[in-house]
Amino acid sequence: MAMIVITKNSVSDERIGEIVRYIENTGVQAHVSKGTDRTVIGIIGNAMPTLAEHLRSMQGVENVIKISKSYKLASRDFHPDDTIIDIKGVKIGGSNLVIMGGPCAVESPEQIDEIARLVKAAGGQVLRGGAFKPRTGPYSFQGVGVEGLIMMAEAGKKHGLLTITEVMTPEYVDICAEYADILQVGTRNMQNFDLLRKLGTIQTPVLLKRGFSSTYDEFLNAAEYILAGGNPNVMLCERGIRTFETYTRNTLDLSAIPVLQSLSHLPVISDPSHGTGRRELVEPMSKASVAAGANGLIIEMHTDPDNSMTGDGVQSLFPDQFAKLLKELEQLAPLVGKEFATAKAPADAFVEWIK
Amino acid sequence: MAMIVITKNSVSDERIGEIVRYIENTGVQAHVSKGTDRTVIGIIGNAMPTLAEHLRSMQGVENVIKISKSYKLASRDFHPDDTIIDIKGVKIGGSNLVIMGGPCAVESPEQIDEIARLVKAAGGQVLRGGAFKPRTGPYSFQGVGVEGLIMMAEAGKKHGLLTITEVMTPEYVDICAEYADILQVGTRNMQNFDLLRKLGTIQTPVLLKRGFSSTYDEFLNAAEYILAGGNPNVMLCERGIRTFETYTRNTLDLSAIPVLQSLSHLPVISDPSHGTGRRELVEPMSKASVAAGANGLIIEMHTDPDNSMTGDGVQSLFPDQFAKLLKELEQLAPLVGKEFATAKAPADAFVEWIK
Amino acid sequence: MAMIVITKNSVSDERIGEIVRYIENTGVQAHVSKGTDRTVIGIIGNAMPTLAEHLRSMQGVENVIKISKSYKLASRDFHPDDTIIDIKGVKIGGSNLVIMGGPCAVESPEQIDEIARLVKAAGGQVLRGGAFKPRTGPYSFQGVGVEGLIMMAEAGKKHGLLTITEVMTPEYVDICAEYADILQVGTRNMQNFDLLRKLGTIQTPVLLKRGFSSTYDEFLNAAEYILAGGNPNVMLCERGIRTFETYTRNTLDLSAIPVLQSLSHLPVISDPSHGTGRRELVEPMSKASVAAGANGLIIEMHTDPDNSMTGDGVQSLFPDQFAKLLKELEQLAPLVGKEFATAKAPADAFVEWIK
Amino acid sequence: MAMIVITKNSVSDERIGEIVRYIENTGVQAHVSKGTDRTVIGIIGNAMPTLAEHLRSMQGVENVIKISKSYKLASRDFHPDDTIIDIKGVKIGGSNLVIMGGPCAVESPEQIDEIARLVKAAGGQVLRGGAFKPRTGPYSFQGVGVEGLIMMAEAGKKHGLLTITEVMTPEYVDICAEYADILQVGTRNMQNFDLLRKLGTIQTPVLLKRGFSSTYDEFLNAAEYILAGGNPNVMLCERGIRTFETYTRNTLDLSAIPVLQSLSHLPVISDPSHGTGRRELVEPMSKASVAAGANGLIIEMHTDPDNSMTGDGVQSLFPDQFAKLLKELEQLAPLVGKEFATAKAPADAFVEWIK
Repeated sequence: MAMIVITKNSVSDERIGEIVRYIENTGVQAHVSKGTDRTVIGIIGNAMPTLAEHLRSMQGVENVIKISKSYKLASRDFHPDDTIIDIKGVKIGGSNLVIMGGPCAVESPEQIDEIARLVKAAGGQVLRGGAFKPRTGPYSFQGVGVEGLIMMAEAGKKHGLLTITEVMTPEYVDICAEYADILQVGTRNMQNFDLLRKLGTIQTPVLLKRGFSSTYDEFLNAAEYILAGGNPNVMLCERGIRTFETYTRNTLDLSAIPVLQSLSHLPVISDPSHGTGRRELVEPMSKASVAAGANGLIIEMHTDPDNSMTGDGVQSLFPDQFAKLLKELEQLAPLVGKEFATAKAPADAFVEWIK
Repeated sequence: MAMIVITKNSVSDERIGEIVRYIENTGVQAHVSKGTDRTVIGIIGNAMPTLAEHLRSMQGVENVIKISKSYKLASRDFHPDDTIIDIKGVKIGGSNLVIMGGPCAVESPEQIDEIARLVKAAGGQVLRGGAFKPRTGPYSFQGVGVEGLIMMAEAGKKHGLLTITEVMTPEYVDICAEYADILQVGTRNMQNFDLLRKLGTIQTPVLLKRGFSSTYDEFLNAAEYILAGGNPNVMLCERGIRTFETYTRNTLDLSAIPVLQSLSHLPVISDPSHGTGRRELVEPMSKASVAAGANGLIIEMHTDPDNSMTGDGVQSLFPDQFAKLLKELEQLAPLVGKEFATAKAPADAFVEWIK
Repeated sequence: MAMIVITKNSVSDERIGEIVRYIENTGVQAHVSKGTDRTVIGIIGNAMPTLAEHLRSMQGVENVIKISKSYKLASRDFHPDDTIIDIKGVKIGGSNLVIMGGPCAVESPEQIDEIARLVKAAGGQVLRGGAFKPRTGPYSFQGVGVEGLIMMAEAGKKHGLLTITEVMTPEYVDICAEYADILQVGTRNMQNFDLLRKLGTIQTPVLLKRGFSSTYDEFLNAAEYILAGGNPNVMLCERGIRTFETYTRNTLDLSAIPVLQSLSHLPVISDPSHGTGRRELVEPMSKASVAAGANGLIIEMHTDPDNSMTGDGVQSLFPDQFAKLLKELEQLAPLVGKEFATAKAPADAFVEWIK
Repeated sequence: MAMIVITKNSVSDERIGEIVRYIENTGVQAHVSKGTDRTVIGIIGNAMPTLAEHLRSMQGVENVIKISKSYKLASRDFHPDDTIIDIKGVKIGGSNLVIMGGPCAVESPEQIDEIARLVKAAGGQVLRGGAFKPRTGPYSFQGVGVEGLIMMAEAGKKHGLLTITEVMTPEYVDICAEYADILQVGTRNMQNFDLLRKLGTIQTPVLLKRGFSSTYDEFLNAAEYILAGGNPNVMLCERGIRTFETYTRNTLDLSAIPVLQSLSHLPVISDPSHGTGRRELVEPMSKASVAAGANGLIIEMHTDPDNSMTGDGVQSLFPDQFAKLLKELEQLAPLVGKEFATAKAPADAFVEWIK
């Protein structure tokens, strides 16, 4: 990793010499450029990332700037083509627009089967649903557990949908990977490094959600953990960040979509449901996500949001809203070079539901 | 303004009685509901907004929640229809999509004339350009002043474009209004209350930019200042907020578009140039803004961004990028119920520029 | 949990009736107060927390406000006296000021032994040191592992210090608890609910660090997880939050100290090392923390910060700075009602180090 | 201003040559260092600050880093000694601790006279009070205007206190300077550049509040505006920043105190009243501010906070709390090398008030 050291105002030549010797002792080269009041030392070669922190703590040093990125496998610099993840024929990445839909939590076989039918009918490719729920307070509903994984796998198989579910701890990775096609890492676990490392040891695709206060750089470094372990099948998911604005649950940062796509070759999915926390914003922000170039969307949909067990109904679409949105996205996608090409079931599925 | 008082745990009946008397002495009614450990006092009627703050400071009070909004004229509650501002036949608001383009700063008659020609040719309706520049350091270029207003007015007239310019202080409102069709209030002046009050005394339309750390509520209260003064012609402009992420200059908060449109009847314009601070993000975020329902865009464009006087070239589109973007937006707009209907000049305008 | 529902403007009486019936079907009472344009429904009794979310998603509902707190065991409402945790005679909480010091990471038996000696000599009571390091990139030093736990336990025993170390995953809780007196939950794990639950099943004291973007409410709910599991020995630690300011690594939020002490009975420790990320700020912010009422400090100290293995040397005090700071804190503590009462080793310990 | 240009991965030598020529055409020197995949170009000499922005927008450029600071007069680099502002014998800066106290707004001659008496009796040196109030909504109390300036000046003179008042617009600077000893620039006006420029033309000391979302760098650049105009008498005031935490009105950033004192020679004052927005936090955060090294405090105090006209009573101390706090600060100050040396009036002043 290349870096640049900027000295404080009027540091003595002796001190600069000491800093240079310190750098060169680590086995890399230092180039000194003297300015009128500050000196700049360029470090070229394969320096350890921690060298920057050490230098920063040395007397006479004002700042140290890392020039190369700390992630490599996630970077487009070394992998110019888009990663396209192929799961049982569904392609995620590149010009494909993938739609994932479903409830916050799996509640019963009937619930997940009915929702799967509606997701498929509307044109979705992936069924989402939580079996284990990360809840901010200990007294809330915590999910139905492994039973939920089985219910969702059956519903997915029956209706021809891939499935995605959240995994929260390393020891559950294997069982979740047995039942689901995609494993989701939640926003609070983006820097659960043991979990990331474990996910690097398998080949099941991972949808990694951005930490709600994580920078793009930290996000890509978290992806790097999984890639470095040997699993190349990683999708990035923007799901809203925490800001001073509390009207929306989070601030969906749509600039993240083109930024991450320029820094990285990995597919970028948008989550307008958690990103806004309000049902009425899911439709406009889904369209905006696609217009910004997203490779896919993950959307909460529920047949009875007022009675969902997690209370996340407030951000869930009704099935008819979900179906209408997908129809509209199908028209929008080609204008931004995306293909939205899944055979639809006949519209009666919804007629039935509406009854 | 209606509000609710929540008492602390186990407050005595006597103290509750005192709080109620305090409320009723201000001329409004108090309704007491006793819970197991807390008591809730509802205040109904036209209470002063400061009553909430006073109550909050009283012993035994845990929290006070204002139920009605503190703005009225800006609220859709009392003005259900969209405001449409008609400026010399250009309609802003409702289903119209207005495009404002131009340089950060007016630099010379030739520069602004050439840019005006290109904005018009691409299909824009409004020419933007700063004559007085708000600069964060005292040693930066501060704008060309009144001369710039005249140059821009002439360029606008010649090419059939409306003009918009920023006004920074109450004493410049009159001269700016003499030359420009729309006055812009910059993000750092959103709560410059003297300026807002002065703008309320005229009828020239105002584009009010959201403070870079202001909530929706504060934003609408700032608009209320202008409306309350008697000027109904206010547009709201989302231009990015400050967050922990520094890769982009600001975080463009596109949820603001549907949220502000639901809370208010005023048109909402998006500024992807300042909202991202990076040229390569202007195109995707312009499309995303339109897809999210924006009533218009304000975009920086420059014929020679590498040599712009403000250094804001980094976020300015080149004329051919601007023209290509507008063509693409024209296709996108109808999919979200917007009309983009301005006669275009022949494509040679750009052929010429590219030469 | 009591809550209040505020309806939208001009909702019909019928709809209000439906909302009330929905509430009462969950087994709690609803009190309706009609205002001029909105209606307020008070919910009294033991409602499920998710009722709020469900109501928020219902037509006609503008907002739902929870009145009771979602945490109980962590709340001072039900536990008015300060929790004082007694670990081998060292008392944490109440009027005691506890000082924890040591390196970011345990590196070798010699390193940790020497630092332990200096912490003790300066008047500290607890030795800190990481054996497993949470690192944001996969290519950084990840700690020396279980060996480090053993080295630290020995150094603590030899010099008469308690020990604290970070635990990152549920499966390591038991081994860490075997060797350390206090287990630390890092900022990125504050909402690692599986880890919190596991920590609730033991009695080893836990120092829970505030998530770098977590609110006080979320922080106390995370503590509640541990308390609800049966472990009453929890300390809260303010370690800086993420804001737009990047000059400091984090923004140390000292208001958190008196706020958390008023909301909760648990001891509050301040971490000025991570809270600022800069050595020169550790001294003033340590003093400010004590002046604000902190029950203790956790401070990084290293004998050779320029060569620390984690690169966190930039925020580590040198031993003589650490010793000088503790002397000054000893004078400051009584002015804010705190006792700083540990026998000191003779000053030669430092004379020796300085050699 | 010196700066460093970092190129993108694998930029051609030709392109690097073009960038170098562009730089050298502006009259400064460019030093090229080639790394394995990126090239670094150091720019030495007096480059225009906008050069950085231009370079950032050029093809092949990844990033541009400014090495020198954009402010000079505010920087300690060129002014190593503390600025001490002497106002009628009261010294602000260096080892002096100044206390400013008073109501949010001047309400009547009796109110301000009584509060002045109590501020003096408690040991304060400066009387604060607003005559013109910046209010976020147009329907709130806006202050009593010039009358208030006169009332406050009389109260100050009678009780031997300096006075400070907020000025909101350039045209009011002269009249405010006629009556008050110190002019305050509020947080929303920190970047009201016309106001700053006007304040640079006079010699009246200015207390510049940090914008609630402004970085240290922006804050010091705002101070630079006043200094560059010719007024050297500037104090910086930390008054809390906006973060995701809403329990406190703002997050008081106490690290700002030592940071600003290291970057600048100007005195740094802390405002715990606005910084927390809660009366019960004013005492601990005042002590923490002094412990962190503040050169002074500005504290709201009111004889009847429940009935204050602005509703800011919630953060105002009662006179006896104010007096008790000052007594305690007097003990604390010497521990951090500050002098708190104002003759006190006899304690009966408070006995009287309490009656």
